[in-house]
Amino acid sequence: VVVRKAGFSGTKNERMFELMDGFLKNDPVSLQKDILHHVEYTVARSRFSFDDFEAYQALSHSVRDRLIERWHDTQQHFKKKDPKRLYFLSLEFLMGRSLSNSVINLGIKDQCAEALSQLGFEYEVLAEQEGDAALGNGGLARLSACQMDSLATLDFPAWGYGLRYQYGLFRQIIIDGFQHEQPDYWLNFGNPWEIERVHVSYPVKFYGTVKEEIVNGKTSKVWIPGETVEAVAYDNPIPGYGTRNTINLRLWAAKPSEGHDIESYNTGDYINNIVNRQKAEIISNVLYPDDRSYQGKELRLKQQYFFVSASLQDIIRRFKDVHGNFDEFPNKVALQLNDTHPSISVVELMRILLDEEHLGWKKAWNIVRQVFTFTTHTVLPQALEKVPVDLFESVLPRHLEIIYDINFAFMEELKKKIGQDYVRMSRMSIVEEGAVKNIRVANLSVVCSHTVNGVSRAHSELLKTRVFTDFYELWPAKFQYKTNGVTQRRWIVVSNPSLCALISKWLGTDSWIRNVDYLTRLKEHASNPDLQHEWRMVKKINKMRLAEYIETMSGVKVSLDAMFDVQVKRIHEYKRQLLNILGVIHRYDCIKNMEESDRRKVVPRVCIIGGKAPPGYEIAKKIIKLCHAVAETINNDEDVGDLLKLVFIPDYNVSVAELVIPGSDLSQHISTAGHEASGTGSMKFLMNGCLLLATPDGSTNEIIEEIGAENMFIFGAKINEVPALREQESTVKSPIQFARVVRMVKDGYFGYKDYFKSLCDSIENGKDFYLLGSDFTSYLEAQEAADVAYVDKEKWSKMSILCTAGSGRFSSDRTIEDYAEKTWGIQPCKLPS
Amino acid sequence: VVVRKAGFSGTKNERMFELMDGFLKNDPVSLQKDILHHVEYTVARSRFSFDDFEAYQALSHSVRDRLIERWHDTQQHFKKKDPKRLYFLSLEFLMGRSLSNSVINLGIKDQCAEALSQLGFEYEVLAEQEGDAALGNGGLARLSACQMDSLATLDFPAWGYGLRYQYGLFRQIIIDGFQHEQPDYWLNFGNPWEIERVHVSYPVKFYGTVKEEIVNGKTSKVWIPGETVEAVAYDNPIPGYGTRNTINLRLWAAKPSEGHDIESYNTGDYINNIVNRQKAEIISNVLYPDDRSYQGKELRLKQQYFFVSASLQDIIRRFKDVHGNFDEFPNKVALQLNDTHPSISVVELMRILLDEEHLGWKKAWNIVRQVFTFTTHTVLPQALEKVPVDLFESVLPRHLEIIYDINFAFMEELKKKIGQDYVRMSRMSIVEEGAVKNIRVANLSVVCSHTVNGVSRAHSELLKTRVFTDFYELWPAKFQYKTNGVTQRRWIVVSNPSLCALISKWLGTDSWIRNVDYLTRLKEHASNPDLQHEWRMVKKINKMRLAEYIETMSGVKVSLDAMFDVQVKRIHEYKRQLLNILGVIHRYDCIKNMEESDRRKVVPRVCIIGGKAPPGYEIAKKIIKLCHAVAETINNDEDVGDLLKLVFIPDYNVSVAELVIPGSDLSQHISTAGHEASGTGSMKFLMNGCLLLATPDGSTNEIIEEIGAENMFIFGAKINEVPALREQESTVKSPIQFARVVRMVKDGYFGYKDYFKSLCDSIENGKDFYLLGSDFTSYLEAQEAADVAYVDKEKWSKMSILCTAGSGRFSSDRTIEDYAEKTWGIQPCKLPS
Ligand SMILES: Cc1ncc(COP(=O)(O)O)c(C=O)c1O
Ligand SMILES: Cc1ncc(COP(=O)(O)O)c(C=O)c1O
Repeated sequence: VVVRKAGFSGTKNERMFELMDGFLKNDPVSLQKDILHHVEYTVARSRFSFDDFEAYQALSHSVRDRLIERWHDTQQHFKKKDPKRLYFLSLEFLMGRSLSNSVINLGIKDQCAEALSQLGFEYEVLAEQEGDAALGNGGLARLSACQMDSLATLDFPAWGYGLRYQYGLFRQIIIDGFQHEQPDYWLNFGNPWEIERVHVSYPVKFYGTVKEEIVNGKTSKVWIPGETVEAVAYDNPIPGYGTRNTINLRLWAAKPSEGHDIESYNTGDYINNIVNRQKAEIISNVLYPDDRSYQGKELRLKQQYFFVSASLQDIIRRFKDVHGNFDEFPNKVALQLNDTHPSISVVELMRILLDEEHLGWKKAWNIVRQVFTFTTHTVLPQALEKVPVDLFESVLPRHLEIIYDINFAFMEELKKKIGQDYVRMSRMSIVEEGAVKNIRVANLSVVCSHTVNGVSRAHSELLKTRVFTDFYELWPAKFQYKTNGVTQRRWIVVSNPSLCALISKWLGTDSWIRNVDYLTRLKEHASNPDLQHEWRMVKKINKMRLAEYIETMSGVKVSLDAMFDVQVKRIHEYKRQLLNILGVIHRYDCIKNMEESDRRKVVPRVCIIGGKAPPGYEIAKKIIKLCHAVAETINNDEDVGDLLKLVFIPDYNVSVAELVIPGSDLSQHISTAGHEASGTGSMKFLMNGCLLLATPDGSTNEIIEEIGAENMFIFGAKINEVPALREQESTVKSPIQFARVVRMVKDGYFGYKDYFKSLCDSIENGKDFYLLGSDFTSYLEAQEAADVAYVDKEKWSKMSILCTAGSGRFSSDRTIEDYAEKTWGIQPCKLPS
Repeated sequence: VVVRKAGFSGTKNERMFELMDGFLKNDPVSLQKDILHHVEYTVARSRFSFDDFEAYQALSHSVRDRLIERWHDTQQHFKKKDPKRLYFLSLEFLMGRSLSNSVINLGIKDQCAEALSQLGFEYEVLAEQEGDAALGNGGLARLSACQMDSLATLDFPAWGYGLRYQYGLFRQIIIDGFQHEQPDYWLNFGNPWEIERVHVSYPVKFYGTVKEEIVNGKTSKVWIPGETVEAVAYDNPIPGYGTRNTINLRLWAAKPSEGHDIESYNTGDYINNIVNRQKAEIISNVLYPDDRSYQGKELRLKQQYFFVSASLQDIIRRFKDVHGNFDEFPNKVALQLNDTHPSISVVELMRILLDEEHLGWKKAWNIVRQVFTFTTHTVLPQALEKVPVDLFESVLPRHLEIIYDINFAFMEELKKKIGQDYVRMSRMSIVEEGAVKNIRVANLSVVCSHTVNGVSRAHSELLKTRVFTDFYELWPAKFQYKTNGVTQRRWIVVSNPSLCALISKWLGTDSWIRNVDYLTRLKEHASNPDLQHEWRMVKKINKMRLAEYIETMSGVKVSLDAMFDVQVKRIHEYKRQLLNILGVIHRYDCIKNMEESDRRKVVPRVCIIGGKAPPGYEIAKKIIKLCHAVAETINNDEDVGDLLKLVFIPDYNVSVAELVIPGSDLSQHISTAGHEASGTGSMKFLMNGCLLLATPDGSTNEIIEEIGAENMFIFGAKINEVPALREQESTVKSPIQFARVVRMVKDGYFGYKDYFKSLCDSIENGKDFYLLGSDFTSYLEAQEAADVAYVDKEKWSKMSILCTAGSGRFSSDRTIEDYAEKTWGIQPCKLPS
């Protein structure tokens, strides 16, 4: 461990004070000077000659300087107060861009814009230069990012820990309608938003063997590693809004370790040795693109342990800086496991307390049991993460021993409670027996955490009845839920400045940005024609932006009078983008078969679909191709014209979301009920006054509760109806319209007949697992209801305002306050201003 | 190619001028402010709390800011003037540390020291925090560095081009007397001395096939690569001394290439694809540690082509920015090949002119012939670089074709001149026929360059008579030589500040720092007792520093009264460190066998040896072990005490040289005559007033000419005597003292009997290729002469002063002026001040 200590005596402090005149100033002239200074000395461009990208870099460095000031003061303050800290462990953080978020949270956006404009640059143009930090796949990862923003804003003493992938989530490019994946070289042009901490680095061990040793008369286990890799810290400041508090997201990068295996270096084959050693860096190379299918992958397990080990070393070092023993540990440390990915940390903490701190099993276990909390995002027991025992034994031999010990103790405890019910015990065991022995990582997490959270009320029910039934019966009090939320700072203030201004104007305050309860007051004005008018103007502006983007990306011109109907999220069978496309085909078919006079009554639509398919998920990739094939036909059909357009937006990511969401009228969240644990995309649309067309799944049920089913378009089977429907599926005939549109695809109406065959097979009678057929009729009805509502401008506007007004409950501020109180037991620790 | 253009209109310039008040100021208070600013915002440490390393980083960034100003102005000026530019291509640059060199060349060392001292830091301590940039093996690489310093100081419009190795030359660590190699993680703690140019990057191609294409009715060859790797530029500013001119050393790093092989990315196995692609970076990973033994290594060939291709793309882009066609190319571009490593550039330029610029063979060849100059560092024909044709064909298929074409034309030309002398033709051919067909890279370089340089007069003779005899006979005018030199800025001013001050005091000027001719004036004072006294004081100070270092590194206490006798350079049989060690054993043996009274007459010695052995060079590694074994015996022998110590200094590099050289009294350069092309270590010792004990090899002959044999200790066979001595070697018996000391090693007097056997075998009668036995007697005599001289303090001091006084001829300033005039045809292009 190398964490440098200050080598600096207090006596010289006066000289320092004299030389430094406090904080950096935020007036436009000071900002200009800083920007130009960074152009010349940081970006190292010639004076008087720099382009938009270089101006973006210089501006970002100026903002970074200000973040660093607050970051330091916050860490200093936490250090002084020593509150209970929350450590948020997550393998994925989908941060998106940082510039706009930072200047807004720092409260210097207008000053920056003014400074730039005098230099001949436009703030908006520079902001567009930034690439996304896409260190995550989707919902789970963006949730972590939103929660970090809320933790900072609400002044909680929190740290995020994760992995600094060299390549983030792949970039999706579309060639001939097919998805291709390109590596995401997000670091290639520098990243001003991170601070490299070359001296904060820890060795992380892998492989090897376990020995016994006698320490003070007691036998103790010693792990002799076969490989050691260094973890180096990169700190990403997360500024709160309306507070000076700025917390830290610390991401670890893997580097070859110095001097840990000297022996291997006297072989003469120096070049090969060094090239092999270089491979250490591969651990933090690349984000796994699918969050369900990496079971049994060694690299994935190494990633998990790598980031967990470095984080725990860092956390324990920080604790020991202040505390002489571990008695206070549970009162000072809360460890949050975001899904099972960081679950190995419960074992790692046991290992440290046992083998390195020599606390003994009882004491160690008592500590572990009090510090971990676990949030699961899974809805199906069969989707829970497992790791083959063989793999574990090879990569983390000592951890496997400890898991066996934990499981033994748990089984003994269980026997006392439930008697000799071996069937139940084998279901609950952390070790799964069978042809391939597995470690059930989820069971491990449940056993070792004091609280297990679901991510919506509906999800919580599924946990009790489907995913963790046995555990719920054993420990009902352990199970809680916190409905997910999203941050209004990014999803309204940053991404929809016009709406932001409008809301503040009508509420007479911008307090809602920190205190989202204020939003409900919009309800009072929902029917006010002036607000409605302005509301529509704002939507129009955002639709224009989106229409421009669509034209640039796909060449399709869309009409602003059309309803923008959007489904953007990862492509997955259960999310049923296919249902959407089949609906579009149906609409197209109807239009084609209409009289000219009837066509005039059709509500024009722009159907927008976007999302990445996991690279190895063939069906998902076929859905993307189908979307393009259908779009090709529809968009070039003169019969249809502006009545219907279908557009695929490539490379959906956070910054694309920021553009798309404010510009949509209607958004679809149409997963087969019981498959979406929560869904957070819907909340972002809700905040932006987009109406939802949705199934009663995940958090949608709570949205219905909040804004009323009359203000949404709800359709389809309910969670508890699904099992029965699946039973009947092979006997009940799917509706005629459904069969018709499927037939069109199957018959090659959109080309690629052979290629689409397996896609059509996957929804055929008897195999339609996700119930597209069974929900099709009600889906079309809901779509029709949306058409009807859209024609009535006043009604639509009112519904839209009520969406935003009712979205406060879905702010991550509320989620985080819940967690803080009911799960983590932490208090705010605000920097004095 | 992405080189960003300024997107910035002139109209806003006034606003810029208003905001920027000219150059950064260099008074101590301004420097303090800058340092503190960098502590807080660049190093991102908490205010009032930073250690020496962080202070070093902050200071370096403050210095870097000032370098950047000058760098820009210089490049701007060159651009405006468009002079003929020199491009110095070298696979190795041994720059060492940058901080001290930079502050001295910028003329701000005292101000920095004062600024730091008020903040509670010591300049010297901070300077010690810097690690070496060790991107080279030894002489050849340090030569490049010295020449860059001279090019900058003499205001020449020059650029250096090289490779930015992730790991520099291995670190040597000694365990139990054995050398172990550790990777040199020089970039792990950041490198403030480089400027990353993310937008200056070029694709470099490898493998693949060659196609024919018809362009404008002519067939043209097109190379379809199998792999593409991106080269990204890192600029290292090289400031001149006493001038604002600051030139650029541009080093290339390999990165995976974006979007060059989209096709391979639709396979579903995304993770493996990305991990494989990552391997691109390996090209610039690691410096090959031995500069003679990598023949046939694919990675080495890829390194060479990688840096050459990127450099030529950059050079041609710069040329084309200003010129519409290639007519002026030879008048604007001089391309210097530092050894054969960059020789593929002659073929690459042909390829570009032929296949990309479509100039036609005649025109292209005419240009190529006029721009390249080649300096060789080789003394033996068998040591010249070769590349197997098979390897070439696979990695660079198009280049192989062009080489065949060049060779065909050359053979035709030759036939016209020398007739059908096929034996000679086969010797001179670029393609070597045989069981394994090879490309003779050196022949290629000679054929395509307009000038071939040796690195000393003696070397030049060897080129004519031994290495390139046939070529010399064909083109005598092509062959020149420029005796190597070293820069007095680094080797006196930076590394020996006391001597620097003393020289300036006695010369009444510091002009010698820019104009080394002034140094000769020291001769006038060589006998002045006051100067001699002060001279000895300076040496004492430097010996104290060195003695301290030795004690810290090896625990051996050495007496300052002893003569410090130093041999530091790479370990190699021809450099004969073994001769030195055998000499030490002999001295030890004599002392052991002396009467107590005689011992009092012995001149006490501290024998210091340092240097790295190539990792695969067994004999060299045994020499290191022998040195340690002998030292173990001698240093612990109470009979001997301070009369004799033997010390091995580990990890010899530039910064160690800066410490060792000023602290030595005597230095050894004892290669077997005819094996050292020049040697530059000797020149550094000479400048620092260390007497030389040397063989008449390489540049030593010219040193003798300059300061007189009476002021040196010259011994051993001459170059032209060596062949005859080798002939006789098996018949003439080696001297008795030699046999005796070898026997001691052989018999296990120093342990490790078996291990040292092969070492002893290598110098046995009949196998003593490097003639240790034959030179041993005269070596001992020279050593004795040194002892005698050392006792006479006045005489020694005078000799020492004359060494420094005579070292001017061995300044790289002189070398560079020679090259500029006689080889490159370039003129200074000085920034107006
Ligand atoms: C880039 C990105 N991907 C995925 C998601 C998750 O969307 P959903 O919850 O609708 O699946 C979000 C949330 O907005 C997002 O921004
Ligand atoms: C680090 C280093 N290695 C090698 C050399 C070359 O030394 P020589 O010319 O004595 O072989 C030098 C020159 O001073 C050097 O500084």
